[in-house]
Amino acid sequence: MSESTTSIGRVKLNELADEAGVSLSTVSKVLNGRSDVAAATRTRVEGILDAHGYQRRMGLPNRNTLIELVFPDLDTVWAMELIRGVENVAKEHGLSVVISETGTRHAPAPDWITGVLRRRPVGVVLVFSDLADGYKAQLRSRAIPFVIVDPAGDPSPDVPSVGSANWSGGLMATRHLIELGHSRIAAITGPDDMMCSHARLDGFRSAMNTAGLTVDESLVAFGDFHVDGGRENARRMLAGENRPTAIFAGSDLQALGVFDAARSLGIRVPEDLSVVGYDDLQLAQWSSPALTTVHQPLTRMAEEAARLVVRMSEEQLESIPRVDLATRLVVRDSTAAPGGR
Amino acid sequence: MSESTTSIGRVKLNELADEAGVSLSTVSKVLNGRSDVAAATRTRVEGILDAHGYQRRMGLPNRNTLIELVFPDLDTVWAMELIRGVENVAKEHGLSVVISETGTRHAPAPDWITGVLRRRPVGVVLVFSDLADGYKAQLRSRAIPFVIVDPAGDPSPDVPSVGSANWSGGLMATRHLIELGHSRIAAITGPDDMMCSHARLDGFRSAMNTAGLTVDESLVAFGDFHVDGGRENARRMLAGENRPTAIFAGSDLQALGVFDAARSLGIRVPEDLSVVGYDDLQLAQWSSPALTTVHQPLTRMAEEAARLVVRMSEEQLESIPRVDLATRLVVRDSTAAPGGR
Repeated sequence: MSESTTSIGRVKLNELADEAGVSLSTVSKVLNGRSDVAAATRTRVEGILDAHGYQRRMGLPNRNTLIELVFPDLDTVWAMELIRGVENVAKEHGLSVVISETGTRHAPAPDWITGVLRRRPVGVVLVFSDLADGYKAQLRSRAIPFVIVDPAGDPSPDVPSVGSANWSGGLMATRHLIELGHSRIAAITGPDDMMCSHARLDGFRSAMNTAGLTVDESLVAFGDFHVDGGRENARRMLAGENRPTAIFAGSDLQALGVFDAARSLGIRVPEDLSVVGYDDLQLAQWSSPALTTVHQPLTRMAEEAARLVVRMSEEQLESIPRVDLATRLVVRDSTAAPGGR
Repeated sequence: MSESTTSIGRVKLNELADEAGVSLSTVSKVLNGRSDVAAATRTRVEGILDAHGYQRRMGLPNRNTLIELVFPDLDTVWAMELIRGVENVAKEHGLSVVISETGTRHAPAPDWITGVLRRRPVGVVLVFSDLADGYKAQLRSRAIPFVIVDPAGDPSPDVPSVGSANWSGGLMATRHLIELGHSRIAAITGPDDMMCSHARLDGFRSAMNTAGLTVDESLVAFGDFHVDGGRENARRMLAGENRPTAIFAGSDLQALGVFDAARSLGIRVPEDLSVVGYDDLQLAQWSSPALTTVHQPLTRMAEEAARLVVRMSEEQLESIPRVDLATRLVVRDSTAAPGGR
């Protein structure tokens, strides 16, 4: 019970236990993340702890030296860039990085929280669009700060988050093509249910509109952010009568799919078709031709999130930090003036 | 001192302290990985602990639930595949993965060991060719098992290790090209100072020799395992008089470099030139054309290493486990009969 008593004292915890109608030992179990407490009891105790503003005191001597990074899926091409960012900040602070792959794009799996509460990390960086209220309450009641890195671009407003400027990225990509002289420009964006897909597409539309160009709706498609989505949509668009001279591919993987579609149709990049990706993954430098793309600062996003987590473990922040880092265009060899001019 | 006394008792540790000419408290500090012990003293104490076969008892109640994965460099394209492997096994055993990037290809940095001894993980998976004797002694004296995953292919004989069959991989890649009808086959392998480069090249030579084909030494090169090494060597080979009809590129990244060299010279893959990679990274599926390559089971290598570490934390193994996992050829679209036959 040593930790539970540090913040508001044994008497008060006793009162909380009474209020929850449980034993002091049950309150202690909940605080220490033990799994042998019924879910309903846990929820009731968490709620009461939260209502009384219970917070574990910071900087306890047994405070761990871990920082956690949680993913829904290690298989994404992003994962490595995010790990690198958290690792960079961990090194600066003498922390070690714990990596977990759990749950879906929307939330970590239930058993994950048990482990986190047991390990008591300095803080948690989550690669999810949101976190269930129950998890938030459990982390907050133990003063384990968390920040969401959200490449999907739609974080919940009550949660600290780091994203990037998706709309500006779409705008820059399209402006670059317009400045090269293209007017028949296609856009393949990501899945319809991710807000970043819409933000990038809206950036595309704004660039077209402000340049006085018409968007041909047959040249706008939602993809899947993977190679297949780029390949299939590009095949359809490039087989049409009045084919585009440039495609904003929405992601680097979709751009590789566009490359493949072009190659199979005997269309040369960039002579016959300009292609712009989005993300600037390492592989964008290795494609042939090297890919012009929008740099999404994934490593910096993870660094920023990890720094925030460390700061939040040391001081109370006045407001919930929410940051979008800038994106920028990286011009390589996959874009040129139309018709090889 | 509770842990130090569990294995051989306080009296004996006292004797060890006497033998080392230090206080019992200093022995305890060394055992607990504290940094406030002079390096010379630490080494002396470690040596005496080791000589007396001191081992922390397994399965202590405060045993951590961490497994560690240590890299020289998170920037390699391998890193993600290895992380995935350790993560898979960690999940099976309810462990969490701590990731550290430290040191060089040859050894982790000195401060790393301090952190490991403090965290007391179930075990450590190291992505290095070897580990300094001092580190080995420190880990062994605390019964923290470690296994080396060694894609470079030259592990020290006294250390548990998991590698893969590099020679067989080179053999299979080359046989595939010979079976397609190629006889003028080039090989670009990795750096001269990595044994896996030599193993793959020797496999290539054996395939050529057993098929009765002559190796043209102007078509054999050491690269760097990166895109540039593939591009530059391929440019030189493809610009020559009697250019190869097929290139075994030694790594997937070098294969991408060969693709780029071919494209810039107007040479079509696979119609005019067949290319085989090595590694089977995710990006091998995404290149255009999709890359025929040798699958190096990086994820399985990491899984095997993590499983070994967990086993070693539970039981004494009779001999030092050293395993090479099989490689296999994955045929995709970058290889065909020569001359488009």
